[in-house]
Amino acid sequence: MMAGTFTRAAFMTALPTDIRALAFDIFGTVVDWRGSIIREGLALQQRLGADWATLPDWPALADAWRAGYRPAMARVASGELPWTNIDGLHRQILDGLLPRFGLAALPEAERQQLNRAWHRLAPWPDSVAGLTRLRRSFTTTTLSNGNMALLVNLSKHAGLPWDCVLSAELIGRYKPDLEVYRAAARLLGLAPGQVMLVAAHPSDLAAAHQAGLRTAYIPRPDEHGPGGWMEAVGTTPFDIVAPDLGALASRLGIA
Amino acid sequence: MMAGTFTRAAFMTALPTDIRALAFDIFGTVVDWRGSIIREGLALQQRLGADWATLPDWPALADAWRAGYRPAMARVASGELPWTNIDGLHRQILDGLLPRFGLAALPEAERQQLNRAWHRLAPWPDSVAGLTRLRRSFTTTTLSNGNMALLVNLSKHAGLPWDCVLSAELIGRYKPDLEVYRAAARLLGLAPGQVMLVAAHPSDLAAAHQAGLRTAYIPRPDEHGPGGWMEAVGTTPFDIVAPDLGALASRLGIA
Repeated sequence: MMAGTFTRAAFMTALPTDIRALAFDIFGTVVDWRGSIIREGLALQQRLGADWATLPDWPALADAWRAGYRPAMARVASGELPWTNIDGLHRQILDGLLPRFGLAALPEAERQQLNRAWHRLAPWPDSVAGLTRLRRSFTTTTLSNGNMALLVNLSKHAGLPWDCVLSAELIGRYKPDLEVYRAAARLLGLAPGQVMLVAAHPSDLAAAHQAGLRTAYIPRPDEHGPGGWMEAVGTTPFDIVAPDLGALASRLGIA
Repeated sequence: MMAGTFTRAAFMTALPTDIRALAFDIFGTVVDWRGSIIREGLALQQRLGADWATLPDWPALADAWRAGYRPAMARVASGELPWTNIDGLHRQILDGLLPRFGLAALPEAERQQLNRAWHRLAPWPDSVAGLTRLRRSFTTTTLSNGNMALLVNLSKHAGLPWDCVLSAELIGRYKPDLEVYRAAARLLGLAPGQVMLVAAHPSDLAAAHQAGLRTAYIPRPDEHGPGGWMEAVGTTPFDIVAPDLGALASRLGIA
């Protein structure tokens, strides 16, 4: 009575055939957090103007801010901190860093404005066009440790087209906790193997792989600045490696 | 150091001035569930063809299916049923109804296909254009009892443009539980008063109002068929009443 189930296996032996959704890591994978934070810092510097003893080293502040991110999430995962979303963690890290960068006197309103810089991160040049193509053939969603408000504001600001916005905040645990990846598949009504995580960080992909997801590695060599640090690739096999989101779309057979 | 906070209060006394996000009820408000379910039923009838003793009364089945929806959610709210998402509740209701409509022998694959009709509901004629306009000036999100997979699939199928997809499933309670409305505002990083619920059902709007949200009532006189039943308006004051989403955009000052 129903047409037989159609399988693409015969035509696409090299690629997983049953992917229905692509879930994207955001910071570093889709948006350039470092360049954006530096620009926001310089704008703040211009806005405040006048009598600086020494000008803040914005690249160093951006790097230190981001470096505080994993330890802060680890304190939540260990139970040392109660659940705190990324806006909250970013703010705690920022407040701890400001004195070291000559900004101990930064007023509260400017701290809030600077912390919200993470809601205004700029996409990599290939991100919007690549996501637009990928969305034609797949359900696309964020799967980020960033909180929902951050992801929604960032996506609206950057014009990132999604079918869905998913955050670790919805699960109450942070990646790379395997439950985050599994819950994402469950919320999409899919088996883990029908979801592919797209990320610039091998450790994120390794956890997704362990949770049963497919994986696409998008190296972003400029994430930590030109010539900057990149996470070691490790031993996890990736289903796809592509230099950017446009190449990923081509690799997945999307015109 | 920062520009003074700008307030629109002086210019827009008749309307709430601090709305940042619009949260939309879906079934009946944005999509025509009844017409869609009837069309799916007729398509199923054509597909199955042949030897029907009596043809199913699809409008009556659509109405009975929908009528089972609130009692089923009430059984979850009371604890009589464990948390079950809308796909699951729809399926339980459907299985209970099929014998009464001469479809007791409907095969499992066709039951699944019919239950998934709720993932393919068609929008009202004004919905896509209206949402597109509203999204220019506001963050837009679903706020539906439909589960995430249903909302994501339905939105992709119908071309509904959202900044965010929120479901009661994320909260583990169904509207009109006030916590659903409050959690939606919290996830968007907003105060309840910065969020406006847009809905065709006064009872939904009354609960949103009680939770501190703003309200826009969009009567949909054809929801239960031409000349069909409409929920009584009750005594809750609505911030806005508009006949469709385009009129809502105009009322909110969007060109």
